[in-house]
Amino acid sequence: MKKLIKEKTDYLADMLAGMKIANDDIDIIADTVVVRKNKKTEGVAIVSGGGSGHEPAHAGYVTDGMLDAAVCGEIFTSPTPDKILSAIKAVDTGQGVLLIVKNYAGDVMNFEMAQDMAAMEDIEVATVIVKDDVAVEEPSQRRGVAGTVLAHKYAGYLAEQGTDLHSLQSRVQTFVDSVKSIGMALTPPMVPTTGQYGFDIDADEIELGIGIHGEKGLSKEPVQPVDTIVSHLLQPLLAEIETDDVIVMVNGMGGTPISELNIVTKYVSEYCEAKNLAVKHWLVGDYMTSLDMQGFSITLAPYSETVLTALTQTTASRYFN
Amino acid sequence: MKKLIKEKTDYLADMLAGMKIANDDIDIIADTVVVRKNKKTEGVAIVSGGGSGHEPAHAGYVTDGMLDAAVCGEIFTSPTPDKILSAIKAVDTGQGVLLIVKNYAGDVMNFEMAQDMAAMEDIEVATVIVKDDVAVEEPSQRRGVAGTVLAHKYAGYLAEQGTDLHSLQSRVQTFVDSVKSIGMALTPPMVPTTGQYGFDIDADEIELGIGIHGEKGLSKEPVQPVDTIVSHLLQPLLAEIETDDVIVMVNGMGGTPISELNIVTKYVSEYCEAKNLAVKHWLVGDYMTSLDMQGFSITLAPYSETVLTALTQTTASRYFN
Repeated sequence: MKKLIKEKTDYLADMLAGMKIANDDIDIIADTVVVRKNKKTEGVAIVSGGGSGHEPAHAGYVTDGMLDAAVCGEIFTSPTPDKILSAIKAVDTGQGVLLIVKNYAGDVMNFEMAQDMAAMEDIEVATVIVKDDVAVEEPSQRRGVAGTVLAHKYAGYLAEQGTDLHSLQSRVQTFVDSVKSIGMALTPPMVPTTGQYGFDIDADEIELGIGIHGEKGLSKEPVQPVDTIVSHLLQPLLAEIETDDVIVMVNGMGGTPISELNIVTKYVSEYCEAKNLAVKHWLVGDYMTSLDMQGFSITLAPYSETVLTALTQTTASRYFN
Repeated sequence: MKKLIKEKTDYLADMLAGMKIANDDIDIIADTVVVRKNKKTEGVAIVSGGGSGHEPAHAGYVTDGMLDAAVCGEIFTSPTPDKILSAIKAVDTGQGVLLIVKNYAGDVMNFEMAQDMAAMEDIEVATVIVKDDVAVEEPSQRRGVAGTVLAHKYAGYLAEQGTDLHSLQSRVQTFVDSVKSIGMALTPPMVPTTGQYGFDIDADEIELGIGIHGEKGLSKEPVQPVDTIVSHLLQPLLAEIETDDVIVMVNGMGGTPISELNIVTKYVSEYCEAKNLAVKHWLVGDYMTSLDMQGFSITLAPYSETVLTALTQTTASRYFN
């Protein structure tokens, strides 16, 4: 296995140590919880997290106007409830904590346990569950993927506006329920802790509808021109979007060069135009990755003035702008 | 070949079209020249460019306080003098144009020809040549790599301060002559226009001292832990640095996940500390890539207050912050 690591057991600790060296506005507590050095003193605090391997999600979004803490599990593994509780206790200002959780059984269970533990310490916690991946048919089973990052930014913005916990939970859940994503891969991720690829794929195949943990997709297809791939992905996405004005995220999976993400963007734009969809804002880059997987996902969010303001408000994160 | 492209001949045009869609503060003129929509009206204008495949370099740095134009050649191929002249003429405010050129024969020749052509149209042009890659022993033959991006930012900042062309050329050249870089690869780049890999490498080998155009490196080594790789790269770099205070760039080669760049950062930091080198600022990310190559480079720049101010001045580019 070719990976830039020392020991596979050091992966998470080394990555977080490096992130702290390069970003002097974060601290690490309880070994794997990233918090803002400049702790929020009022308003609702926002906590997210999950397995690692999706960088910059979630630790790279710990900044003013986004997350107050990110709880980092081992690669593709949920963090434990005690770590989540540490994050909640570290950031609570007395006005409650919002948890943003991707819809995976382990994450949902562990964040719920942490919420219960926090309640016993009289900290009010509410939860938003993200299920934006339309590659899974049954809505309740849908995975949380790149749309989660939009929820971080929207929630962080609303919290800074003084929105209370109850309203925040309700507005962020409503927003993220309207956000839809779907992804594809040219290559599987190589998982450094196991030395194994996430899934098998031939040299002349691509995979549509993949997840971000090496989950296989909906279908294997022969290699196709990018405009064909884009139309295959946008078709099911558009079927679930009810507005004509949208915000589009073209998300790289970790090993995709910026040049190719820009090429994808061109064809997403053409397809949207042909379908009379007006794109009000573009986000193009690595937001929610799967280690070194080559591929991309497309996320559509319905446009509103407030959402656009929230998503374009400048933050100190180099990963969201 | 698995690439997110339509036709290999569309690569450059499609990439630039996508970049413009996602960044509404740029325009494209003469097919392959990226300019600021909000053109500078006074002061020295800064132009760079070269072959494509190094995104975000250089087009992603066309923004306030960095480049006024980027001239984009085909993949790994110098742009032609007429395109460079178009860029010069588009951005000149009457106070002269600084060209920042990586030290490759084709680039140097074509930018020089454009400079001569501009002189015939009474536009004053000066040139800075970047030769920061210490993997090449003979200093005059050294390639321009990631240090070029620091030169963009330093020059853009000084130009905004009202520095005249002559002083700007001299200060940027002096600065960038003190900047040193070296890189390594786990995998070679796949060149979309040819369908070929940049170089051959076995599954259990890495390559130290590679270039950014698929040039082979100084030596092939068996796969090593990242701290060993980092020390092999920093040893020759440190031999050429004369200050104890430095600015460090850990640059991803295009296919390297953010997590691994952060792990590299940790070990660069440890090595610098052991050698009593104080790191005053870190830049960690994809700045000067080689398509989808997996690997990284390290760049060291001597610290000064002005350099730090220049490098940390906020710009609208999402690729430099």
